[in-house]
Amino acid sequence: MSQFKRCLAEFIGTFWLVFGGCGSAVLAAAFTAENANIAENIRYPLGIGLVGVSLAFGLCVLTMAYAMGPISGGHFNPAVSIGLWAAKRFPASELLLYIGSQVFGAIAAAGILYLIASGKPGFILSGSNPLATNGFGPDHSPGGYSLFACFITELVLSFIFLIIILGATDSRASGGFAPIAIGLVLTLIHLISIPVTNTSVNPARSLGPAVFVGGWAIDQLWLFWTAPILGAFLAGTFYYQLLSASKPQR
Amino acid sequence: MSQFKRCLAEFIGTFWLVFGGCGSAVLAAAFTAENANIAENIRYPLGIGLVGVSLAFGLCVLTMAYAMGPISGGHFNPAVSIGLWAAKRFPASELLLYIGSQVFGAIAAAGILYLIASGKPGFILSGSNPLATNGFGPDHSPGGYSLFACFITELVLSFIFLIIILGATDSRASGGFAPIAIGLVLTLIHLISIPVTNTSVNPARSLGPAVFVGGWAIDQLWLFWTAPILGAFLAGTFYYQLLSASKPQR
Amino acid sequence: MSQFKRCLAEFIGTFWLVFGGCGSAVLAAAFTAENANIAENIRYPLGIGLVGVSLAFGLCVLTMAYAMGPISGGHFNPAVSIGLWAAKRFPASELLLYIGSQVFGAIAAAGILYLIASGKPGFILSGSNPLATNGFGPDHSPGGYSLFACFITELVLSFIFLIIILGATDSRASGGFAPIAIGLVLTLIHLISIPVTNTSVNPARSLGPAVFVGGWAIDQLWLFWTAPILGAFLAGTFYYQLLSASKPQR
Amino acid sequence: MSQFKRCLAEFIGTFWLVFGGCGSAVLAAAFTAENANIAENIRYPLGIGLVGVSLAFGLCVLTMAYAMGPISGGHFNPAVSIGLWAAKRFPASELLLYIGSQVFGAIAAAGILYLIASGKPGFILSGSNPLATNGFGPDHSPGGYSLFACFITELVLSFIFLIIILGATDSRASGGFAPIAIGLVLTLIHLISIPVTNTSVNPARSLGPAVFVGGWAIDQLWLFWTAPILGAFLAGTFYYQLLSASKPQR
Repeated sequence: MSQFKRCLAEFIGTFWLVFGGCGSAVLAAAFTAENANIAENIRYPLGIGLVGVSLAFGLCVLTMAYAMGPISGGHFNPAVSIGLWAAKRFPASELLLYIGSQVFGAIAAAGILYLIASGKPGFILSGSNPLATNGFGPDHSPGGYSLFACFITELVLSFIFLIIILGATDSRASGGFAPIAIGLVLTLIHLISIPVTNTSVNPARSLGPAVFVGGWAIDQLWLFWTAPILGAFLAGTFYYQLLSASKPQR
Repeated sequence: MSQFKRCLAEFIGTFWLVFGGCGSAVLAAAFTAENANIAENIRYPLGIGLVGVSLAFGLCVLTMAYAMGPISGGHFNPAVSIGLWAAKRFPASELLLYIGSQVFGAIAAAGILYLIASGKPGFILSGSNPLATNGFGPDHSPGGYSLFACFITELVLSFIFLIIILGATDSRASGGFAPIAIGLVLTLIHLISIPVTNTSVNPARSLGPAVFVGGWAIDQLWLFWTAPILGAFLAGTFYYQLLSASKPQR
Repeated sequence: MSQFKRCLAEFIGTFWLVFGGCGSAVLAAAFTAENANIAENIRYPLGIGLVGVSLAFGLCVLTMAYAMGPISGGHFNPAVSIGLWAAKRFPASELLLYIGSQVFGAIAAAGILYLIASGKPGFILSGSNPLATNGFGPDHSPGGYSLFACFITELVLSFIFLIIILGATDSRASGGFAPIAIGLVLTLIHLISIPVTNTSVNPARSLGPAVFVGGWAIDQLWLFWTAPILGAFLAGTFYYQLLSASKPQR
Repeated sequence: MSQFKRCLAEFIGTFWLVFGGCGSAVLAAAFTAENANIAENIRYPLGIGLVGVSLAFGLCVLTMAYAMGPISGGHFNPAVSIGLWAAKRFPASELLLYIGSQVFGAIAAAGILYLIASGKPGFILSGSNPLATNGFGPDHSPGGYSLFACFITELVLSFIFLIIILGATDSRASGGFAPIAIGLVLTLIHLISIPVTNTSVNPARSLGPAVFVGGWAIDQLWLFWTAPILGAFLAGTFYYQLLSASKPQR
């Protein structure tokens, strides 16, 4: 597969992860029924809530891993690329190109999402997590969790995320099922941690919306680059040393 | 497979997509518990909301793609047929027959759904999106999004929809999983965009309910034919030029 | 596989369908948080609602189809057995044994569920659909739908249910995926029609709770035997005549 | 596979089951929107509720069964190990090592979860089920169910859980799909029974949080060891005697 095709696949996949995941949060999570008449007598909320947003993030990865996985391997996440490199499954020489493609995809997605969201009268970038940005501490953790709790959460979840990815794509595993396991573990990670950090485990996903929100969102980006990358690096090393097949068995 | 069988499969599949997807929205999205006693002391809503409707649309395609896919390929959507043609995966000579079968299936489904829905005392076709019609602008976008935001949303989502379909059914992919990827990406697309346009990405799905609602629903149909078809056509061309396998590899 | 094993598998599978599906509705659909302290400051409902009940019914079939499918074929439903017979996929000589096993499984499940549900202080069998019974008309359709609307709904959904089953298990299909398609179409059928009839498409599932509720629930059973069986029979005949592979192709 | 690798895989898998399942309940089930501004005008709850928690528990097992299953078989549950032993699928000599690894994994997970949860100002271990502990009777069953109802529920659900596991991993079954069936049946079990016992079917999962909550949680642990293990043992014996393949058929 040519290098251009692989970078294009990573761009598209990360675009979809940010557009679909953050888009579901911004456009549909807290949808109120005031203007909807899906049925008579609406008396209660219809929005997708945290379950819907969690599903959306996971399904972005599941669907793009089936569609783009055969081309680029389907990382869509700098921490994943680095974790795979630490586990000796991905060459260092490709890291910068992959991460660059992912970052550009995330920024493009956040831009188009901003364009659409602002097509609703009264839309403004305010509140604790506008445009589905990630954050920590009393002002920008959705549930007000401390920096320490947020760091541990991102570290542990990124570690497990890579363990699942490495296990499900191991030579011992049933290959075609990997996108199901990997997509659904991202759903699961969101089911756990949206109230803590709004869930990153992906530096590119954090960067995209932050570019448009600016200010505090940029200031807090460091955590969403260091914790996921550290967790992923530790998982890659751990898996390679302790869990990987001695040699491919098929 | 005979041409008659293929058209019949497209008719049934599109029937199910409209009956199941729009049916879940009309009958169950905002179900109130006044008459239900599933348990004592019901104090809150039980309806399926936008998460349930999103699941329903996706599962219609997932299930029919497994059941009818081996017969017709499982398009159930004029934009999909056109996108596959643009990617040189579907012959131009079949386009009209497929699209015709899809349109008739969608109309039949909307008719039976109307019959059932009107079996509840007090049912009327009113509000911003009766019978789960698609719409745009202040009066008929469920969330009041502008025509421009609605057009961009349908265009981008139809583009990505086709990218997933083309990637998941590529000769490089694990074939049996394609209906999972394709069904769940339709769920994901709904998780993002019901508040914007009530989600189309499918001209036949938009046309079915509009036939029974008439008036504004017919007037606004143009967007739900042009944006999905344009997005699908661009995706088909893009995929064929930049992402497709040089030659089948298995 | 011995006849005893096959009947036992149908008994267990139908037990699970009724225990899990109706159990989720009775025990968890409208769970109120008064006694729960999963977290501080609960201010709103936690129950699984119609989305959760729909998932539960479908997952019962998905899981048992993987576990018992290799033994009995995994019908768990008299209408399915009859539809498969109409499509010439199941011998008439086995119909009575299968249906008997299904009915006993459903009754056993409803009995144990009743035992558990009555372990909550204040539990009584009242309201429009106690113990998750099916019903129609103003008093026992959860949404108050007419007998006609309820009959059409059960007929159409049972027809499509069998089309999916027949297509997904056809010799043309990717075999291992059939339980996913069949389980999830049952979820989808519930997403659409719980407000209409509380969703049957399965005479045994309707009979189980009705035995314990008695009265009106027994009086209304006829619809939930005739409509699903008629829909399934028509689908079996239709599929065999118009859609089945001329001959197995693998 | 070395014994160390297998124990490590069980440790990690059970860690994830408790961290992800209980974590979603503690951190996200009843999330209130007071501090979140995912969108303007939030007027209603966003938390994942019992559907989200049920999904989380099931996805923990689904994902780890794909990732660690090829290493250890993916039990993550003392009752599963014992049930598999009763069905003559797992050697008695490994039981203690597996159960020990599972118990340590569960305790480690509950500890880290406690650390994170206490990073939110105002967090305290109180109420009927703090840290997602299991319980029974008027004070610690979330819905106030009696000891008898709770025991029967755990017994029946553990029995069926093992039947699904044994059937889906039988030599007759399509192997790669087993983690889907097994993960989703755990989701289903939670959809049914969170209001009854907060759902255990897993002695290690019950023990983890109880260690940190102490008092009544330790006093009530006996039920969550005896009922799941008894149900699993009965299922293993039942399956081996009545349902297993006479001999492997592939």
